[in-house]
Amino acid sequence: MKNWIGSTLFVLSGIFLTIHSTHAQTPPKISEQTEACLACHSTLHPGIVSEWKKSRHANITPAEALKKPKLQRRISNEKIPDPFVSTAVGCAECHTMNAGQHKDSFEHNGYKVHIVVTPSDCSTCHPVEGQQYGKNLMSHAYGNLMNNPVYRSLADTVNGIQSFENMKTAQKPPDPETKLDSCLYCHGSDLKVKGIKTRKTSMGEMDFPMLSGWPNQGVGRLNPDGSKGSCTACHTRHQFSIEMARKPYTCSECHKGPDVPAYKVYEVSKHGNIYSALNKGWNFNAVPWSIGKDLTAPTCATCHVSLIINGSGDVIVERTHQMNDRSSWRLFGLIYAHAHPKSPDTTIIKNKAGLSLPTELTGEPVSQYLIDSKEQEKRRLAMQKVCLSCHSQGWVDGQWVRLENTLKTTNEMTLTATKILLTAWEKGAAKGLAQKDSLFNEAIEKKWVEQWLFFANSTRFASAMMGADYGVFANGRWYMSKNIQEMMDWLEFKLQKGSPGRK
Amino acid sequence: MKNWIGSTLFVLSGIFLTIHSTHAQTPPKISEQTEACLACHSTLHPGIVSEWKKSRHANITPAEALKKPKLQRRISNEKIPDPFVSTAVGCAECHTMNAGQHKDSFEHNGYKVHIVVTPSDCSTCHPVEGQQYGKNLMSHAYGNLMNNPVYRSLADTVNGIQSFENMKTAQKPPDPETKLDSCLYCHGSDLKVKGIKTRKTSMGEMDFPMLSGWPNQGVGRLNPDGSKGSCTACHTRHQFSIEMARKPYTCSECHKGPDVPAYKVYEVSKHGNIYSALNKGWNFNAVPWSIGKDLTAPTCATCHVSLIINGSGDVIVERTHQMNDRSSWRLFGLIYAHAHPKSPDTTIIKNKAGLSLPTELTGEPVSQYLIDSKEQEKRRLAMQKVCLSCHSQGWVDGQWVRLENTLKTTNEMTLTATKILLTAWEKGAAKGLAQKDSLFNEAIEKKWVEQWLFFANSTRFASAMMGADYGVFANGRWYMSKNIQEMMDWLEFKLQKGSPGRK
Amino acid sequence: MKNWIGSTLFVLSGIFLTIHSTHAQTPPKISEQTEACLACHSTLHPGIVSEWKKSRHANITPAEALKKPKLQRRISNEKIPDPFVSTAVGCAECHTMNAGQHKDSFEHNGYKVHIVVTPSDCSTCHPVEGQQYGKNLMSHAYGNLMNNPVYRSLADTVNGIQSFENMKTAQKPPDPETKLDSCLYCHGSDLKVKGIKTRKTSMGEMDFPMLSGWPNQGVGRLNPDGSKGSCTACHTRHQFSIEMARKPYTCSECHKGPDVPAYKVYEVSKHGNIYSALNKGWNFNAVPWSIGKDLTAPTCATCHVSLIINGSGDVIVERTHQMNDRSSWRLFGLIYAHAHPKSPDTTIIKNKAGLSLPTELTGEPVSQYLIDSKEQEKRRLAMQKVCLSCHSQGWVDGQWVRLENTLKTTNEMTLTATKILLTAWEKGAAKGLAQKDSLFNEAIEKKWVEQWLFFANSTRFASAMMGADYGVFANGRWYMSKNIQEMMDWLEFKLQKGSPGRK
Repeated sequence: MKNWIGSTLFVLSGIFLTIHSTHAQTPPKISEQTEACLACHSTLHPGIVSEWKKSRHANITPAEALKKPKLQRRISNEKIPDPFVSTAVGCAECHTMNAGQHKDSFEHNGYKVHIVVTPSDCSTCHPVEGQQYGKNLMSHAYGNLMNNPVYRSLADTVNGIQSFENMKTAQKPPDPETKLDSCLYCHGSDLKVKGIKTRKTSMGEMDFPMLSGWPNQGVGRLNPDGSKGSCTACHTRHQFSIEMARKPYTCSECHKGPDVPAYKVYEVSKHGNIYSALNKGWNFNAVPWSIGKDLTAPTCATCHVSLIINGSGDVIVERTHQMNDRSSWRLFGLIYAHAHPKSPDTTIIKNKAGLSLPTELTGEPVSQYLIDSKEQEKRRLAMQKVCLSCHSQGWVDGQWVRLENTLKTTNEMTLTATKILLTAWEKGAAKGLAQKDSLFNEAIEKKWVEQWLFFANSTRFASAMMGADYGVFANGRWYMSKNIQEMMDWLEFKLQKGSPGRK
Repeated sequence: MKNWIGSTLFVLSGIFLTIHSTHAQTPPKISEQTEACLACHSTLHPGIVSEWKKSRHANITPAEALKKPKLQRRISNEKIPDPFVSTAVGCAECHTMNAGQHKDSFEHNGYKVHIVVTPSDCSTCHPVEGQQYGKNLMSHAYGNLMNNPVYRSLADTVNGIQSFENMKTAQKPPDPETKLDSCLYCHGSDLKVKGIKTRKTSMGEMDFPMLSGWPNQGVGRLNPDGSKGSCTACHTRHQFSIEMARKPYTCSECHKGPDVPAYKVYEVSKHGNIYSALNKGWNFNAVPWSIGKDLTAPTCATCHVSLIINGSGDVIVERTHQMNDRSSWRLFGLIYAHAHPKSPDTTIIKNKAGLSLPTELTGEPVSQYLIDSKEQEKRRLAMQKVCLSCHSQGWVDGQWVRLENTLKTTNEMTLTATKILLTAWEKGAAKGLAQKDSLFNEAIEKKWVEQWLFFANSTRFASAMMGADYGVFANGRWYMSKNIQEMMDWLEFKLQKGSPGRK
Repeated sequence: MKNWIGSTLFVLSGIFLTIHSTHAQTPPKISEQTEACLACHSTLHPGIVSEWKKSRHANITPAEALKKPKLQRRISNEKIPDPFVSTAVGCAECHTMNAGQHKDSFEHNGYKVHIVVTPSDCSTCHPVEGQQYGKNLMSHAYGNLMNNPVYRSLADTVNGIQSFENMKTAQKPPDPETKLDSCLYCHGSDLKVKGIKTRKTSMGEMDFPMLSGWPNQGVGRLNPDGSKGSCTACHTRHQFSIEMARKPYTCSECHKGPDVPAYKVYEVSKHGNIYSALNKGWNFNAVPWSIGKDLTAPTCATCHVSLIINGSGDVIVERTHQMNDRSSWRLFGLIYAHAHPKSPDTTIIKNKAGLSLPTELTGEPVSQYLIDSKEQEKRRLAMQKVCLSCHSQGWVDGQWVRLENTLKTTNEMTLTATKILLTAWEKGAAKGLAQKDSLFNEAIEKKWVEQWLFFANSTRFASAMMGADYGVFANGRWYMSKNIQEMMDWLEFKLQKGSPGRK
């Protein structure tokens, strides 16, 4: 009987361990420097300290992490620098890392601390992710918006303050705080140290650097150490939970509005439905991520980022932080769907009209800056490997024909709207390129922007992710169709007004 | 002491079983045919095989299922055909069922396999659900859209590609892929075998049927065996989880857009709030579904589909897959709210103007095609039984007075918009019925459509499901009111233009 | 070995208790009166009885509750009246409380029962919450809407039924049921006993009071006992779950539409993302609520209502049901952002134009009715204490500068829209104040309303709660900017039309 008791207890202990210990091992040693941080900040900032304690950073040392089989590893450096290898990755490890490069580094109780931990800092242990992310359009999201005159002008007409005098409106350029509160929240800010401020604290007077552009965790943030981006945009401080990064809410922070409604489309897709109804039984912490075992429908990360294996342990797709290397087409944000740009810095693109746009205003691609059909094919096959884990080739082929047809038809509907706008410019109903006026400041131009930035994009997302409901009446085809008729009416009224002789 | 240990272990084993085994019994025998499928597909398609293994189909045989007390049964046939009775319901059982009727059946490793499992196949074990679903408007969703000239024309103006030449727009009829990517995603496609394709696979060259209209799981799909609909629209492959069908996300795949915002209204209702906050403690797998014990607020399925009992085990309402037999009024999709049509095939309806609409353009019901007040009363009482499980008769009466008043007032607001449109047609500001032009292609007509398809519908849903927030500013009364003023302005501008004397 | 077994069993029993018992103690005695209720209603209304059984009311007596340490107490009275102290708080306790004051009290099987339990009734055990709530704007939500001529007129133009005759629209005042189905759902109804009705029930014929305005649980409901509000608006009957009140879905019932999109902004904020991804591990039932231990990101309640402590058990902020005492600015619902009004009854406010508005139409605050900068400072510091539990002072300062800048710029954009409207009135393109016409019934006026009620509000919420995505393209700056151009076009067309004879 003792044996029976013993084995039962063994089983029950299993439950105990399953329930209570994601991190079975004793928490590792904490460095002296981090202990010094925790001494005050545990009381001052209980929320973030508690989050960190739940993190993998607090529960395994890099040395232990390196012992894991390759596929299970979350750190991509083969060798971690000595001072960091045998303690938890704590406050001091990250916030004093590479102090020399950090313009935001400051003296704090005897340590050179910096506020902003950057992709360069994270690359100490995660260099492959850092490099891949550098090729990600996201890492250039600041410059691609602010240093591209076309896009900068769009942002300015959104954020600039309009006034009304003498029957006319005028627009001031947006102030810096408005930009930070708007586009740059997601695109990232230009973080600069603008001085030192002395503050009374519970520990007496202390000096802190003042940062312009702070707070910000945008994906293309320009950091005080010269690096670009923010890992915490997706890997939220200070738990850095892979579960969180893999759940769709993270992506929805920036990808939910009508300009890029990926999350809204996911929600009404079959995949999103399965996720919402059944994900409580999934394992979001497993690395690698095993289809069928850990999850039975994809989240955003599954298709676009994660290392996925099948039931036999074979790799289906490798992890990527470049993000677009399973995507052949860029669906959103630009006037027409087009092949992905080669370089993540899209300010280098110039079309025939001299605009930094990957297509002409009338849709022809500016091919020398875009990936070729061979690279597109490669990316399509990479994505389809994920699809084929659950779907037949016939299903996948059918889905692709439909998506590529939708790219074509949404481009056609955008071209029709563009022709109406060009006519409005030509006939003097509105002022555009030829008049050296903004492309985005008049009512008809704003309708044109909605045609592609909202309605065509939404229709494409709905197609790509099979969330058709969103692409019909929610913000898709219905509005593409209606918007063209409203643009026509606008043009008719404006032309009628202008010339007494015309009807 | 041994006894004490023993009984403690017994209790603890209970926890173990509760936690780890939804299906306590040993998984049943798998048929030889299904074993043959699994031999390859477990590796090729780990996602769907894993889902199936979690399904009831994999975990109980029809024979065992038939032994359950009547109320607990999920199969409605009294006798299951012999070959299917004593093994799990696996790949082969469904995908080789009724092969003779299936035009999509093909030779696959020695078996006659079909891709598309249909309501006819499912009816082998679930015939009552199959029959009820045949009376459901959903099962006719393809024809009711595509074979009704009015609705077909609405769909065509949504999906057709517009062009612009010589200051005029023109519209092409939509291409087949666009229709599949739009309305037919939910309404269902016309699945046809269009040929055979030979593909290189990891098993060598193999032949597969090519299906037009694939993939699709729309509720009114026309299947290659002649049946209508798709059970997997709601009972998602291959887990066929009743939990999932009962959660509101399933309905939201098709019922979330502004034309039928049931899910959005549910979300802001008290019921939706209780569900979101507390459903983690509910039992979504119990059959029958016991109010108070298994759930404490309704989901979509509770009110419209499920077999519900009270705490004493008495049946409150029977299960139905006809779906509308607890609903007196059709709230959405048509110009005016009206009594439900008698036949699920609504193409047979003709109003005085010869249109396939359940009301005249001015709102009068075409009564001979609609259920009478006695049938409405019966349906109202069936629904109210569900309400009365938690609410007093006074509460329920108050709610119903309010809903029926809202049907009346939203119909009035639609009539006002319709009169403006009729005036526009009459005065030549737009082209309509008399000019044999589409009712849906001009800007004023699209505004008119939004009046009923979006705003009046949304207001009614908000009333019916007590999610008032959605019916005021989100997409309801505010827009009904504003839209009429905008239609008036449009009419004024167009008429002004028409008269040469005025500018 | 026995010892080892013993201690293992001890640990395992701990799991058992953790899993199975939120309320470890034996359920308390139920009063005779409540037993009488349950005798019938357990069968008649299993849903609500089951909810109540899960409630704290059913599982602890006031006497036991009073023994808890002060910070852990959920009842704020120091002494509970005798008849209620030693039994569960059941049906009869609340539904027969203060019968004398209740005009809805009626004879029911020998008891004087009332249907509507009110804040006065709840104040028997929760008087501090009752008093605080009396100072909450919400408790005056009925009068602030219905008794303020400006807001009443806005509501009437939303809810009134429009007709069309002779090329003109006219509007009837809204009927009572429409108002109940619209604004008053959230604002609260005026509950009045309008008679007695005899109903056949399963217990024979019985008399019940008929209530006009029922059902309703709006926050400013006028109750039959003369009190204002409804605790069940947030503390949903009959579980009265603090978990539910603390989850954001409760607030979203009324705060999700475009007029007050708090929930939509929260969803795309980092806080909302953390909540959605990780809240399953949080403790929503703990009182006090310990940051870091019970939760690692705020919900609505955390910042605006709850008693919060840090890891050392120190109080960060006290509980409040006044709700606005951590908010310096009123962001929404009015034309301009402004300091909070002093009195929750805002009908007492009169601006220079004699309108009950906290600012002039051109934005100047009507300061004598608003809190001063000292009180604003106090409220800002209270809110910032919550922020500082996780964020540095530099972060918080940066956030505040940004928010207050956004208040300024959104007010400017509203002023621009207002100037266009004032010009339209002045030049006769529309009819406004001077013509004694509604401010809200014409198309241009409705565009003006959207400028502040939807777009400026949304932009401010997005800023205040760091959910920028919502404030750019979803319903924010893009539309503020576009709307002004569309108002200009409207004005131009109207003036052109009027031209020769009119000004």
